[in-house]
Amino acid sequence: MAVITPNRRVRKTPFTPGVEAAGVGGYTVYNHTLLPTFFESVEADAAHLKQHVQVWDVSCERQVQVKGPDALRLMKMLSPRDMDRMQADQCYYVPIVDHNGGMLNDPVAIKLADDQYWLSVADGDLWQFALGLAIALGLDVEITEPDVSPLAVQGPKADDLMERVFGDQVRDIKFFRYKRLRFEDQEFIVARSGWSKQGGFEIYVEGSEYGMPLWDTLFANGQNLKVRAGCPNNIERVESGLLSFGSDMRRENTPYECGLARFCNSPLDYIGKSALAGQAENGPPRQIRPLVIEGEIGPCTQSWPLLANSTQVGQVASAVYSPEFGVNVAIGMVDRAYWEPGTRIELMTEHGMRWAEVQQSFWR
Amino acid sequence: MAVITPNRRVRKTPFTPGVEAAGVGGYTVYNHTLLPTFFESVEADAAHLKQHVQVWDVSCERQVQVKGPDALRLMKMLSPRDMDRMQADQCYYVPIVDHNGGMLNDPVAIKLADDQYWLSVADGDLWQFALGLAIALGLDVEITEPDVSPLAVQGPKADDLMERVFGDQVRDIKFFRYKRLRFEDQEFIVARSGWSKQGGFEIYVEGSEYGMPLWDTLFANGQNLKVRAGCPNNIERVESGLLSFGSDMRRENTPYECGLARFCNSPLDYIGKSALAGQAENGPPRQIRPLVIEGEIGPCTQSWPLLANSTQVGQVASAVYSPEFGVNVAIGMVDRAYWEPGTRIELMTEHGMRWAEVQQSFWR
Repeated sequence: MAVITPNRRVRKTPFTPGVEAAGVGGYTVYNHTLLPTFFESVEADAAHLKQHVQVWDVSCERQVQVKGPDALRLMKMLSPRDMDRMQADQCYYVPIVDHNGGMLNDPVAIKLADDQYWLSVADGDLWQFALGLAIALGLDVEITEPDVSPLAVQGPKADDLMERVFGDQVRDIKFFRYKRLRFEDQEFIVARSGWSKQGGFEIYVEGSEYGMPLWDTLFANGQNLKVRAGCPNNIERVESGLLSFGSDMRRENTPYECGLARFCNSPLDYIGKSALAGQAENGPPRQIRPLVIEGEIGPCTQSWPLLANSTQVGQVASAVYSPEFGVNVAIGMVDRAYWEPGTRIELMTEHGMRWAEVQQSFWR
Repeated sequence: MAVITPNRRVRKTPFTPGVEAAGVGGYTVYNHTLLPTFFESVEADAAHLKQHVQVWDVSCERQVQVKGPDALRLMKMLSPRDMDRMQADQCYYVPIVDHNGGMLNDPVAIKLADDQYWLSVADGDLWQFALGLAIALGLDVEITEPDVSPLAVQGPKADDLMERVFGDQVRDIKFFRYKRLRFEDQEFIVARSGWSKQGGFEIYVEGSEYGMPLWDTLFANGQNLKVRAGCPNNIERVESGLLSFGSDMRRENTPYECGLARFCNSPLDYIGKSALAGQAENGPPRQIRPLVIEGEIGPCTQSWPLLANSTQVGQVASAVYSPEFGVNVAIGMVDRAYWEPGTRIELMTEHGMRWAEVQQSFWR
């Protein structure tokens, strides 16, 4: 595998010195920003994550700040989810779609004030879409990327570690809710969220200068919890059915195809709503399914077609061997005629043909 | 340096098998796509590029297709350049700005038909900006990313190689003009352009299935021209003053600051025009300048501040030793009070303080 060449365009983060010192083994690029992919190995990292606690540099989850008198108006155009039900301390997972109902991104929205929202975005310059809308409609709103770098603390001991740094009020934060908690002379949004199902938090670190002090404080306080540097783990997240925008779903997919129907409850005429009416009524023609792939598989570095009688009936873009479950776990987008649990479908991998079987549910 | 972990989100290209077989040494990610950064070494690649001919996988220059009855209307909103002067076979370098005049991208526009344009974009999802405008205004236009992967043929022997594959009409293509030329059963846009000043072409390969056949044909025909796989070369492009969007300039910069005033000649009220009126009249407060950096410098992997009396007066984001010119060549954004040729300014690099001197012009 080739090395990655850093420059100003592919941004380092406030935590990069810590990530490098911890011996990062691989990177990807996400929102023009470095994102670690493993430290010891994806397998060893997964095993540690499930037992202890890890600190993840997820600065690449950039914030699209929507601020101004028309902020809520723009959010209501963008959001298939009912923004009027959003409570002040809530995090909202929001699939955002184009006029055809095609997925543009799947951010987590946070309301900071009545006229100020952050969208913590998946890979893609969603701010450009919001900016285009705002300019064309003459909305009184600013679309910017503030100096905010999320740091995730994930794993079963996450509460223990976070309590030592932010106090015992972290334990009262409910899932997908946040509190404003103090670190040094600054308050950060601290949410119970993160891209694993091992529990934990995301700290929205506002001000790059707080990055390494917070990183160092977490590691200093976590030594006897066996804290380690980690990152979104490709084994744990596939077992958990956590979708990666750009891999598992894209603009050619609707939220219904992604299994996100429950997030499309806005009574308003948001962008794409009319185009989605048919799928809202009758369901989508294909949908995300968990799959087990038989035999040995190599790395999944591209989309693998699912085939029935030599016709494509879907694809797999995430697949990896799970040491915990002893099978190759995978996420597929599968046509309706083949999506019933137990259905076996041929899969054309980079490394040869394999059989894949649709599962009832993800592994956690 | 850490390796890069590929997946579906970070896209391979139609030429990736050729790039890998040629022994690519490093990658960056550009528009969610792999872009090679060196093969033998940046130094050796530069020397070869200046003598012979190279084939570059620049598929990452994705095309934003603007197609439909309102295509020209949208292009005129987006373009600071006078679209009515654009001739049918012309390529237009177009800085695109937001309502404040801040750079969003600097694509090359190609007119395929009266109702169909391609924008060959720098790193950034400009299609999302165009889509936001189109949806908000109800324009009758489709914004898509077609299956088009540019392949560059660069170097002093580029005409010789291209003639062998596309015929002698390639020699008649003028700078930033294009012809439609046949390869197998398909016609490709072939433009005299590319991100070097060594001369050459960009082939807009439409249809991924033509990628490796064309790659192989170019190499088969170029053996006695010493053809090699190459990529945008960081030494040659800094010597040549070719700006990298995201590194040398960003949304906080105007086209005037980037030295692109001559491309802001539209008589129409394009987005950002009124915000730029002051700089159009009086010039910008800072501007791109060539710099020589004294002493030894390490890799420039982030923005280096330029300092005068401990105050920041600009920054450098591209700097590298030039074996040809025997100095460290650099691209800086420099405040007006310090931009005169001969001015010496302190530079805070990752590797210590250095002196930088403003030059009269880039090296070619």
